[in-house]
Amino acid sequence: MADTGMTTWEERGKPATLFKRFAFERYGATRDFLDALAALSEETGLHPQNINFGTTYVNITLEAVEGGELDEAVRAFATRIDALYSRAGE
Amino acid sequence: MADTGMTTWEERGKPATLFKRFAFERYGATRDFLDALAALSEETGLHPQNINFGTTYVNITLEAVEGGELDEAVRAFATRIDALYSRAGE
Repeated sequence: MADTGMTTWEERGKPATLFKRFAFERYGATRDFLDALAALSEETGLHPQNINFGTTYVNITLEAVEGGELDEAVRAFATRIDALYSRAGE
Repeated sequence: MADTGMTTWEERGKPATLFKRFAFERYGATRDFLDALAALSEETGLHPQNINFGTTYVNITLEAVEGGELDEAVRAFATRIDALYSRAGE
């Protein structure tokens, strides 16, 4: 796990989106994080608007539901993604 | 499977990269394609430079190894990705 995990999500654009970059030391950890994220999406029914990744990074953009304000559901989803990342180094 | 599967990869930039967009009708098919692509990377040891996806699309960029010309290995990898996509609709 790299040290970007403690940063906050960046609010961007209009309609608002949340953006964050996660860094990993090797592809295996990147892959584990992506698999955990897919499982979280399946559980919650929430999907990032966009996921952009290479071997050692994952950039995630979350959008407000129905183009509205960033509500609690989206922010809670972001927090749960952070938790997946915290566990990625274990 | 959408009809973009029959298009060719677009050569971009310098050093050269190959780019292609794949479209899917639903997230389950997108996810299956991403899983198959991860398995192919594990088998071949080749990884796309970048994968950019949402619920119903996957954009893939392949780069030449060591920044050189696009060699046969990269083009063969692209062809194998096309084959994964052809199977995604089955």
